[in-house]
Amino acid sequence: MENSKRLQINIITVTTPEAGEKIGKPPGNYITIQAPPLQVNDPELQEEIIKVLSKNLRTVTAPFLKPNDPVLLVGLGNRHAVADSLGPKFIEYSPITRHYHQYVPEALVQGMRPTSGIAPGVLGITGLETLEIIKGVVEKTKPALVIAVDSLVAQQTERIGRSIQISDTGIHPGSGIGNARHPLNKYTLGVPVIAIGCPTIVNAATISNQSIQNFCSNSAYAYDEAAAMKSIKTVLAYFGGSLSVTPKEIDEIIKNTAKILARGVAAALFPHIGQKQLELYTV
Amino acid sequence: MENSKRLQINIITVTTPEAGEKIGKPPGNYITIQAPPLQVNDPELQEEIIKVLSKNLRTVTAPFLKPNDPVLLVGLGNRHAVADSLGPKFIEYSPITRHYHQYVPEALVQGMRPTSGIAPGVLGITGLETLEIIKGVVEKTKPALVIAVDSLVAQQTERIGRSIQISDTGIHPGSGIGNARHPLNKYTLGVPVIAIGCPTIVNAATISNQSIQNFCSNSAYAYDEAAAMKSIKTVLAYFGGSLSVTPKEIDEIIKNTAKILARGVAAALFPHIGQKQLELYTV
Amino acid sequence: MENSKRLQINIITVTTPEAGEKIGKPPGNYITIQAPPLQVNDPELQEEIIKVLSKNLRTVTAPFLKPNDPVLLVGLGNRHAVADSLGPKFIEYSPITRHYHQYVPEALVQGMRPTSGIAPGVLGITGLETLEIIKGVVEKTKPALVIAVDSLVAQQTERIGRSIQISDTGIHPGSGIGNARHPLNKYTLGVPVIAIGCPTIVNAATISNQSIQNFCSNSAYAYDEAAAMKSIKTVLAYFGGSLSVTPKEIDEIIKNTAKILARGVAAALFPHIGQKQLELYTV
Amino acid sequence: MENSKRLQINIITVTTPEAGEKIGKPPGNYITIQAPPLQVNDPELQEEIIKVLSKNLRTVTAPFLKPNDPVLLVGLGNRHAVADSLGPKFIEYSPITRHYHQYVPEALVQGMRPTSGIAPGVLGITGLETLEIIKGVVEKTKPALVIAVDSLVAQQTERIGRSIQISDTGIHPGSGIGNARHPLNKYTLGVPVIAIGCPTIVNAATISNQSIQNFCSNSAYAYDEAAAMKSIKTVLAYFGGSLSVTPKEIDEIIKNTAKILARGVAAALFPHIGQKQLELYTV
Repeated sequence: MENSKRLQINIITVTTPEAGEKIGKPPGNYITIQAPPLQVNDPELQEEIIKVLSKNLRTVTAPFLKPNDPVLLVGLGNRHAVADSLGPKFIEYSPITRHYHQYVPEALVQGMRPTSGIAPGVLGITGLETLEIIKGVVEKTKPALVIAVDSLVAQQTERIGRSIQISDTGIHPGSGIGNARHPLNKYTLGVPVIAIGCPTIVNAATISNQSIQNFCSNSAYAYDEAAAMKSIKTVLAYFGGSLSVTPKEIDEIIKNTAKILARGVAAALFPHIGQKQLELYTV
Repeated sequence: MENSKRLQINIITVTTPEAGEKIGKPPGNYITIQAPPLQVNDPELQEEIIKVLSKNLRTVTAPFLKPNDPVLLVGLGNRHAVADSLGPKFIEYSPITRHYHQYVPEALVQGMRPTSGIAPGVLGITGLETLEIIKGVVEKTKPALVIAVDSLVAQQTERIGRSIQISDTGIHPGSGIGNARHPLNKYTLGVPVIAIGCPTIVNAATISNQSIQNFCSNSAYAYDEAAAMKSIKTVLAYFGGSLSVTPKEIDEIIKNTAKILARGVAAALFPHIGQKQLELYTV
Repeated sequence: MENSKRLQINIITVTTPEAGEKIGKPPGNYITIQAPPLQVNDPELQEEIIKVLSKNLRTVTAPFLKPNDPVLLVGLGNRHAVADSLGPKFIEYSPITRHYHQYVPEALVQGMRPTSGIAPGVLGITGLETLEIIKGVVEKTKPALVIAVDSLVAQQTERIGRSIQISDTGIHPGSGIGNARHPLNKYTLGVPVIAIGCPTIVNAATISNQSIQNFCSNSAYAYDEAAAMKSIKTVLAYFGGSLSVTPKEIDEIIKNTAKILARGVAAALFPHIGQKQLELYTV
Repeated sequence: MENSKRLQINIITVTTPEAGEKIGKPPGNYITIQAPPLQVNDPELQEEIIKVLSKNLRTVTAPFLKPNDPVLLVGLGNRHAVADSLGPKFIEYSPITRHYHQYVPEALVQGMRPTSGIAPGVLGITGLETLEIIKGVVEKTKPALVIAVDSLVAQQTERIGRSIQISDTGIHPGSGIGNARHPLNKYTLGVPVIAIGCPTIVNAATISNQSIQNFCSNSAYAYDEAAAMKSIKTVLAYFGGSLSVTPKEIDEIIKNTAKILARGVAAALFPHIGQKQLELYTV
């Protein structure tokens, strides 16, 4: 797969359930693209990320995606909460062509597969499980593949806004901010699901705990997890643990990342079509 | 049904297909609530509209809705185009309780039925027919009733922002701005569909034509429709007929109307629960 | 001053510079209104907060505000960063009447003073110091009083969204999120400045430090500030210290608080005009 | 000045007050850039417009702008009304550097002049005349030049979203949607004002009148302006004449145009700095 001097690319392939158990993940491909610190605004670096992202997506989707197969894009998360709006923004920026195939095929460039896109919202706002919405759409519209984008909770603040995680095993419960209870994957939806996730927040408890650990090692004190958790709870109790840490620039980070993902996914799905032509199909 | 001094309420019941054909509508109930000009900001009038709306909704839904039956709210239209965002805003302002029933029933007030809500977006943005999305959700979640809210194209500018149209025959193609091609009704969805529509725009061609008609009658000239249409086309050709007329205040009109609809529908669906308690379930 | 059973009201009057030095504040009045935990959505409590806020504002402004004096409202902060948008939202929700006085005085209710409002933005976006903008507006439009609203950085997460701080000594540099370098007060602007601030975020470093302190006291370890700061720095270094902690509900908290402030300030400035009439002057 | 095959560029220079009176404009330069129909989404055409815009701006500003002179950008209009939000969006997309000069000069590229930017809002929302705000800012911050961007009311629907009008005589009352009563020009502000305006709406009365005129000429009827106006008034009376005509795509047209203007103005103000470097200074 594509390599890059400035990007760190990490590919793990889990081949057996036994091997998967050791790292807590089902068999499949796991790719992480990591950008250098604080440089995602750099237009050249963005082009490099988009190229690496699309190459890896093409490799991952090659086994089950033929040139004209339809693809459903799903943007998970809450469009009204900035740090959780990566998925909905990704849909907004992606080229959608399925209705052209149905109503104005003459408006399409040769070799443009049908794409559709939906941002189903979150349980707390719709009262509906994401799976209940997406399963219905998959059954009615029969895409060959689902590509789902979601915000992730990071374990380190430096991951925010510079890491893209791809897997072909679907989106798993609790991995996103939205507390999805039912996974979207080939068993629940009947079609393969490529998950693309990007860390956008860190839990307040995580950074507090890391600070305590650092303090203990700096001061040669024994770190005790139960004591640390108890100490943190008093500080963060008020909002029921819903406190999260984001950089001031989160709004721009989300827009930037959503654009990179939309362009990288489009380049993977429409490999023969130029960027400029694709922009004509994008809102 | 409820009457009001300041509101004009119009109820038509079409009982046979033959009677329906004469007015171009299928058998069912058609209710129009019309507010006096330019007074919808008046808080007392708003309360009156909410009361009349909820009373009429209760009457219309009484035949097929038992106290604890689940209801799916659908907000049609494009959230990114102000004049077409009434439906999505209605969902945003409505109390959604279905997930409480599933996960935290103790947080519910006695007698609070399950409600869910979805704003499916428009074909031009999702590449999906509204019916393809909503039919799936209905099949997976089995509501007893769908209540769908949409923006309407008015024939008179004075209807914008002061008229509410209710029917129990579903939402019909082309009636909204979004050019829905497949209707949402009990035949396509398998459950009754209450449609609530509010005029938010007038086509530019409509006002031009009315101006020509007025001019002809004022000047004692013969009005000729074909000549009028031809004259209008030259003026409006550039944007392919997508030109629409809205008042400057459209943003406020949409928010105001969406709040009135959300409160009126909530009062109809949760008849024993006070407004203040309902607000605790609203974003 | 008004008291309340559910609200905790704290009034400090600093009469001499010497007394002020001890608590690090200039002479003046400092009022804090604190609501009970997690109940600001409660409509009755909101009414109570509005009443207490307006009574206290009337007392504080009484010495220098005559019935028809014009007032300039200033909404500090960045409208594009949710947690910092309290000030701009306050302006959006406030009744503005100065232009009616100039152009359509007949549209005004008797005894309605002129109010104007501006949200000047933040230095990082405008390249302009807030003082450079506001001083010009004050010189050109000569209000008798400025009321400035800003988001505050809290020291405890439980202050977020339930505390209102009022002072008649102006807004001081660094007190808000926006890093205002030059204060807005009667010395810099030439007119008295009432500051209203509400905590909306906590610095990530603050909660980490509190967690370390708790951990030390729970574990009977010695707390050392320098060691704590060093330990925290490693965890939070990546975004240059701009990491902040907010609850998931921050968007709703900001809207709610802005509405309470707008209604409380309006009730103080237009004491003889009913809430319903005021709403007609509000966007 | 620059020419272009696909763009129509029109330059009028009025040299004497007498000549100006004939066309109802004060002496100065008037440049119109007109794009071909329905192609502004085309990325190559956008680059061409940006190039032509920046070249013409450099020529117009050459007489009074030295390389390091500070410039104040002003975005007129109402950010909450889509068709009127071109000015505020222009500010949002423009590179602002003045605060770097004051606080972090080492972060600047050699030869980057100080720019600041303000979107003062509209009288109906602030209660403040635009001139009252901008005059203060000009006096306090002493820019060498003001560049003001505003939405315009067009006389033809085909002008919407494809025409840019530049003049060095300031922004004149009533030319924009915002009904500015006091002009921004070198007499009122003390520094030259370059105005950039783009048509975004057409009054509903304008298209009605044009339709009547077409109808009369098509039908060989006598057109009578008074009769036409009377006929139109009945149709449009309800919203006090505030009805305006916009294409459905207005939201995208505004964003697109604001980006083109921001990039064209930046290229004119920072002639030696590459587009990619400029993007690092843009939100």
